[in-house]
Amino acid sequence: MTALSKELREATARLSVEARRPLPGSRKVYIGGSQDDVQVPMREVRQADTPAVFNAMPNPPIAIYDTSGPYTDPQADIDLQQGLAGIRENWITGRNDTELLDGATAQFTQDRNVADQIAAVRFPNRRTPRRAQDGKCVTQMHYARRGIVTPEMEYVALRENLRREEMRQSYEQAGLLRRQRGQSFGAVLPELITPEFVRDEVSRGRAIIPANINHPEIEPMAIGRNFLVKVNANIGNSAVTSSIAEEVEKMVWSIRWGADTVMDLSTGKNIHETREWILRNSPVPIGTVPIYQALEKVSGRAEDLTWEIFRDTLIEQAEQGVDYFTIHAGVRLAYVPLTAKRITGIVSRGGSIMAKWCLAHHEESFLYTHFHEICEIMRAYDVSFSLGDGLRPGSIADANDEAQFAELRTLGELTRIAWDQDVQVMIEGPGHVPMQLIKENMDRELAECYEAPFYTLGPLTTDIAPGYDHITSAIGAAQIGWYGTAMLCYVTPKEHLGLPDRDDVREGIVTYKIAAHAADLAKGHPVSQVRDNALSKARFEFRWEDQFNLGLDPDKAREFHDATLPKQAHKVAHFCSMCGPHFCSMKITQEVRDFAREHQLSDEHKALEEGMKEKAREFREKGADIYQEV
Amino acid sequence: MTALSKELREATARLSVEARRPLPGSRKVYIGGSQDDVQVPMREVRQADTPAVFNAMPNPPIAIYDTSGPYTDPQADIDLQQGLAGIRENWITGRNDTELLDGATAQFTQDRNVADQIAAVRFPNRRTPRRAQDGKCVTQMHYARRGIVTPEMEYVALRENLRREEMRQSYEQAGLLRRQRGQSFGAVLPELITPEFVRDEVSRGRAIIPANINHPEIEPMAIGRNFLVKVNANIGNSAVTSSIAEEVEKMVWSIRWGADTVMDLSTGKNIHETREWILRNSPVPIGTVPIYQALEKVSGRAEDLTWEIFRDTLIEQAEQGVDYFTIHAGVRLAYVPLTAKRITGIVSRGGSIMAKWCLAHHEESFLYTHFHEICEIMRAYDVSFSLGDGLRPGSIADANDEAQFAELRTLGELTRIAWDQDVQVMIEGPGHVPMQLIKENMDRELAECYEAPFYTLGPLTTDIAPGYDHITSAIGAAQIGWYGTAMLCYVTPKEHLGLPDRDDVREGIVTYKIAAHAADLAKGHPVSQVRDNALSKARFEFRWEDQFNLGLDPDKAREFHDATLPKQAHKVAHFCSMCGPHFCSMKITQEVRDFAREHQLSDEHKALEEGMKEKAREFREKGADIYQEV
Repeated sequence: MTALSKELREATARLSVEARRPLPGSRKVYIGGSQDDVQVPMREVRQADTPAVFNAMPNPPIAIYDTSGPYTDPQADIDLQQGLAGIRENWITGRNDTELLDGATAQFTQDRNVADQIAAVRFPNRRTPRRAQDGKCVTQMHYARRGIVTPEMEYVALRENLRREEMRQSYEQAGLLRRQRGQSFGAVLPELITPEFVRDEVSRGRAIIPANINHPEIEPMAIGRNFLVKVNANIGNSAVTSSIAEEVEKMVWSIRWGADTVMDLSTGKNIHETREWILRNSPVPIGTVPIYQALEKVSGRAEDLTWEIFRDTLIEQAEQGVDYFTIHAGVRLAYVPLTAKRITGIVSRGGSIMAKWCLAHHEESFLYTHFHEICEIMRAYDVSFSLGDGLRPGSIADANDEAQFAELRTLGELTRIAWDQDVQVMIEGPGHVPMQLIKENMDRELAECYEAPFYTLGPLTTDIAPGYDHITSAIGAAQIGWYGTAMLCYVTPKEHLGLPDRDDVREGIVTYKIAAHAADLAKGHPVSQVRDNALSKARFEFRWEDQFNLGLDPDKAREFHDATLPKQAHKVAHFCSMCGPHFCSMKITQEVRDFAREHQLSDEHKALEEGMKEKAREFREKGADIYQEV
Repeated sequence: MTALSKELREATARLSVEARRPLPGSRKVYIGGSQDDVQVPMREVRQADTPAVFNAMPNPPIAIYDTSGPYTDPQADIDLQQGLAGIRENWITGRNDTELLDGATAQFTQDRNVADQIAAVRFPNRRTPRRAQDGKCVTQMHYARRGIVTPEMEYVALRENLRREEMRQSYEQAGLLRRQRGQSFGAVLPELITPEFVRDEVSRGRAIIPANINHPEIEPMAIGRNFLVKVNANIGNSAVTSSIAEEVEKMVWSIRWGADTVMDLSTGKNIHETREWILRNSPVPIGTVPIYQALEKVSGRAEDLTWEIFRDTLIEQAEQGVDYFTIHAGVRLAYVPLTAKRITGIVSRGGSIMAKWCLAHHEESFLYTHFHEICEIMRAYDVSFSLGDGLRPGSIADANDEAQFAELRTLGELTRIAWDQDVQVMIEGPGHVPMQLIKENMDRELAECYEAPFYTLGPLTTDIAPGYDHITSAIGAAQIGWYGTAMLCYVTPKEHLGLPDRDDVREGIVTYKIAAHAADLAKGHPVSQVRDNALSKARFEFRWEDQFNLGLDPDKAREFHDATLPKQAHKVAHFCSMCGPHFCSMKITQEVRDFAREHQLSDEHKALEEGMKEKAREFREKGADIYQEV
């Protein structure tokens, strides 16, 4: 019997229909690994056959990386009040290096668990927290360095491969394996991802698998320059708006559109409980910025923050299952004045909190001085670092300045300390950077942080478009992704203006999936172009439904199409409303192609010069109308 | 007395309120030139003073490039049935090298002018066409090469300067002249644009001023790598939808949001009359693709096209005042088979029409064989070439292939021929290109077309996002603009799916203004960053209204803000809904800055190390709350 309020019970009784509906024209498939409980989900988009007019042929289903978890599986039984199944549970316990605790060890959690006024919002089905046995390290990096290929690593390998071996022949037959040469700037993208390759990348620190032992519900994924570029979505309530059920819905909604990880940036009421609801229902890694909650604990007075409060917050969140922590340990006292002449000063919330603390105490940041102890906590749960860029630029004018790069050097120093303890690390990056200064950010990060994965917010490439910052930043995100950034933190159209709603979240994620995919293509990823090729072929052959379904947002594509040509018949029409029946260039091209084929032309100019005059007459006589009724 | 139908008379009686409303927080100003009738419009955005908490100071108005013509001037008297005033009329007649014709010389126009069934849609206030006197050339390039600085060139210089000299001091005092170093890839962006510089660029063919002598209504503008990057919007009806009044409204709507030129791509009914309505009311250059109309004249049968029909169409449109023609003269017979193995063949409408004609006749394209005669027509009216890329790639897989580059080489050859006759030229470019292959397009264009301005459609950097192709392409557009493209043809969210509506047009243009501006910044344009700096400063100082008004789309920014914080009081609030009152990093930064200033810190680390402990105590004692009531 739960004490959950009637309101929250009802609000979490089910997700919206939109969040659970399977994506159109596709089905969820599971790819089995070397042991029965490695079952990697993918979305398989089925395609119609090429119609006779374009030379009939079957078109293979296309495997798509699927972040949506069980929510888009019509077979899955979802109960938000119970949470998801712990698919990693046996892997974790099987390693025999963790122990179940008697209960939460964080003081805050203990207080919270008995506070009556919290009962109405408390997640009903909490897990007992687990921790590394004394003296053990339970990070994926630790295993990797010992040569162990974990089920998580195998899972990642299967996931990243997108069935490329299995599908090779049918893709090839359909002409989908064409690939432009890439420019990888030093990234190494193997033709096939093996579990051993994943292990190697994690072991070198070039990739992380964020996977807290207290978050067994996740479907493992990797963040690293030699894997697919990933996208993070931010959710979280604030003092001003939002509630628990809304946040859970927003998380599910985010992963539906392709968020690879989700950060819970809540700063309002019931942060602890909101996070629990999200974690227990999230199949993707969850990141947080613990200093936000710590600040709530001292009523918003940055100068009252202490190491003890922060430490308790880390443990509280680690035992809930947070997979990565943004920690602004690079904001050192001496760097703060470097921001004084900026147009927009310090724009990172965490950065400004720590700057204020440093100035108020005239002491080195406790995040920096206690960094070793922080590492000890992280390694006991396998929480990954996302070393925060507290001094990132907040405007074009402030990009690439001394404050920013001073902090970056410190993040490199901290990376080494974390790695010495086998703690996984990624590095956060800007922010606001004009295009010509983007590459310097990537180059310096690789050099000074030893190729630890880079995780950037955009960057925005101009400041003159509030209301469109998903676009100003997607331009920068695509470029920095190409140069080597491993994960892109999305920006929504509401950036700088307000909190994103459902539509903004969808718009932001799809925009960032575009940036990430454009980056994969530019790097020369071995199988990314298959989806572009399949969609382009469907477009050329007027397979409208396939064109919609292969896209990042099938619903919107269909809706846009139907706005001018709503009739069902038009979805098989050999023209679209852009050009009308006479002008369809694709239709004309097909005629050119048929003609070339009939006359055994190819790309040999010779053929054209021989006997063409006569054949031209034939063609004219056939007088093929461009438009054919459907 | 006009024979205009009641329906059209009513539909063109006025524009929508939205299209005519002046942009918020700004006023139209006119900058005078060396003669009285050179009056260059700009939009001046006024700013509030910096509030006392951030150290009170006045903030200067910001001059913004204004493409919207008289429509956003509340003083202007607009009558769509009369058309705009011919501000260039005296400049044109003053050159004494043109003559008024007795009437249109194109057969089609003559027929059309007497056809009774057309009366209902015929523009009431047609101009008598003008042409170069026998043996004269009336192109801006011709004047430039003779050392003549035309009023059009002076106008362009004033316009591009954005009052930089006049405003320098007040911008400087407000700290707005900070500028990141650019990377220009060979572009030369002078600190001040002189009329002589414009003349020089036009004379070399590195810039064009599209300005048909029969379109005296335009406010002259330049397209060239050493000027601000421009944006084109496409409008036009099709057989499927749209009408005359809608197209005029769409043109006005496009320039409101920043379209520098507009292409009328109509393919439906009454193309001739629709164009007349648009031209007579357009203050921006209008481009067309004459082959579309020629094809209508032969009922859509490409093989029935003839040079004579095409020639008559060129003259018809030149005498109406079209400023540039897309002509696909580079689609040569021998290149057509090079497209046979592409995934998406030929996707340019003009390209596929010509390809079909070439194959049907097995003859070299009449556009290529008659190119000299085409130039003779162009020079008699000063119509600029937009040499079409009929073989541009339509998918990632087809980018940068032999067909595309073969055509580009031919466009270079044709550029030389046009220049020999003093005809202005720009070159069209792709299309669909993954990021790593974009630069090659720019480099080859510069080399093979002798630095003639490049005008690209996007390019789209991935094919997997129908419904979001304004974004897939803005990523490519920003990059190619940075590399040197002079004008970007917009793509709307409806690309590949249907005809754009008002919202799509606005979204497409604003997206492309972002790409163009990001490119200007990256190149290191001398004054572009002023607007970013002003907006960033306004953002930092919580001057919400200024932040909205300085943006590309003030209405949307305001609407988004109000969605979470609708109250008027919040517009002067020192926080926003993203972070809530405790967490505003900008507010905290201001405290850091005040602190640093009070204690005479700057970026000298030394100062920090001396006597800080004591001062830190003071700061703590003051206990400034982060949030201050407004």
